[in-house]
Amino acid sequence: MPYEFRLRRRVEFSETDMAGIVHYSNFFRYMESAEHAFFRSLGFSIVTREVDTPMGWPRVHASCDYKRPLKFEDEVEIHLLVTGKKAKSLSYEFRFRKVNATLAEEVARGALIVVCVRHEAGNMKSANIPAAIAEKIEVAPEEALRVA
Amino acid sequence: MPYEFRLRRRVEFSETDMAGIVHYSNFFRYMESAEHAFFRSLGFSIVTREVDTPMGWPRVHASCDYKRPLKFEDEVEIHLLVTGKKAKSLSYEFRFRKVNATLAEEVARGALIVVCVRHEAGNMKSANIPAAIAEKIEVAPEEALRVA
Amino acid sequence: MPYEFRLRRRVEFSETDMAGIVHYSNFFRYMESAEHAFFRSLGFSIVTREVDTPMGWPRVHASCDYKRPLKFEDEVEIHLLVTGKKAKSLSYEFRFRKVNATLAEEVARGALIVVCVRHEAGNMKSANIPAAIAEKIEVAPEEALRVA
Amino acid sequence: MPYEFRLRRRVEFSETDMAGIVHYSNFFRYMESAEHAFFRSLGFSIVTREVDTPMGWPRVHASCDYKRPLKFEDEVEIHLLVTGKKAKSLSYEFRFRKVNATLAEEVARGALIVVCVRHEAGNMKSANIPAAIAEKIEVAPEEALRVA
Repeated sequence: MPYEFRLRRRVEFSETDMAGIVHYSNFFRYMESAEHAFFRSLGFSIVTREVDTPMGWPRVHASCDYKRPLKFEDEVEIHLLVTGKKAKSLSYEFRFRKVNATLAEEVARGALIVVCVRHEAGNMKSANIPAAIAEKIEVAPEEALRVA
Repeated sequence: MPYEFRLRRRVEFSETDMAGIVHYSNFFRYMESAEHAFFRSLGFSIVTREVDTPMGWPRVHASCDYKRPLKFEDEVEIHLLVTGKKAKSLSYEFRFRKVNATLAEEVARGALIVVCVRHEAGNMKSANIPAAIAEKIEVAPEEALRVA
Repeated sequence: MPYEFRLRRRVEFSETDMAGIVHYSNFFRYMESAEHAFFRSLGFSIVTREVDTPMGWPRVHASCDYKRPLKFEDEVEIHLLVTGKKAKSLSYEFRFRKVNATLAEEVARGALIVVCVRHEAGNMKSANIPAAIAEKIEVAPEEALRVA
Repeated sequence: MPYEFRLRRRVEFSETDMAGIVHYSNFFRYMESAEHAFFRSLGFSIVTREVDTPMGWPRVHASCDYKRPLKFEDEVEIHLLVTGKKAKSLSYEFRFRKVNATLAEEVARGALIVVCVRHEAGNMKSANIPAAIAEKIEVAPEEALRVA
């Protein structure tokens, strides 16, 4: 049962700032793109298109520790690990590394906690993660998380 | 009857790129913020919140000619002028100048054509501009547009 | 001596996502705009333009806890508080509230740790915060932080 | 000699807006990503890292005509065509299509004019396109442009 996913992307010009490095807010966009690709890899979309009660996954917590800068055209691997699974929420860790760099060269490490919600009459209400999704996701074992 | 609007904003760090200047795509976000502030100045929101048939203003054309760069913390004035008004669409011109700079120092000049639509069953359908809005907007006279 | 700053801004259309709310990554752009306005209020720019050894303030940590969504045209106050001051780094807390809302309705609470660096030969090296800046900033007293 | 390039990408959540479609400013980021991938395909980077006189490619004109919306997770092909080549500038056309859609379903068509510049003492000065680059790029023939 999957508890991790790896996504690669190349830093785009518009993601840099005048300091010549990726703007720190974009690491949160990168995390989300890994999360959504993880869902696609399981056969789901983060956005359900049924009209009756559309589902969403708003974030309740996001954080990132920055160790090294990313620059234009760097190829980066975002390694998603599931660190928690509750009835209504999922926790993720994200490890950023430049492709072709050694393990030691972690660029950044981030985390997200997302809550499953239903949209009803314009409001969001927390809801149980659908069984079809929950069944396919498990928390990463200790060993997987211990690796630097 | 209003045919123009002026909005000031200060360039933010996250709007710059590694060339040290405002990324060209952000001029289109600046134009839109002037358009929406123009609507607010008329007593409307660009987003109507009635649930029955929500209205929108998708863009069918956008362009910009860049003359000088904008840098971090530059204060810029975006001068919106209405250049066309049809039953279902509005055309705008946008003139960018640094605040406290001479008239000659136009930074950029852009244009938008936006179409009024109704959202019905998940689709967008072009629609007449509501009379309450159309009555409040007029096309800028020749003299206003001729000014450098 | 200043230990706090309040910035107001209105949510822009381009800051929303298909869930109809401000994309979570934009809270980090909002924090930064408050940080930079705080510096301007002290008579400094976050970007020093001297050519010899340009200074920067990369982030080593960023986090945010989300409590309520922000929507298009919401007016939001970002309340910056200095929570830590070391020789080479500053820590901030950011409290987001909708303008005209009661104290209880905090929308989000974030944090940043930034490090002062000098750019030398294309590399960033951590450096002492210039005295002129350090002298003007103090850590918020307990009472200021205790307020909900 | 290359006069065209095709790049595919998938629409990300953070690129959508509250209307549920890709924000119009992001089409300009998509165009740029195709332009930069085109340069990489020729063995160059749009950013030269030599320290003496760094080169850049600021935009002097950008435009886009929008025909159909793009939505979250749509896979889109950006077809770049070189439409002009002068001593100091290049002109491009960009045709957006959803992958797996018929030819008729063009989503948008854009254009860019970019100028080669040298950065000297903090200023940008237009410069001849380096021969090594100019030799590798040609203007698309009439037939290539005529295709719907």
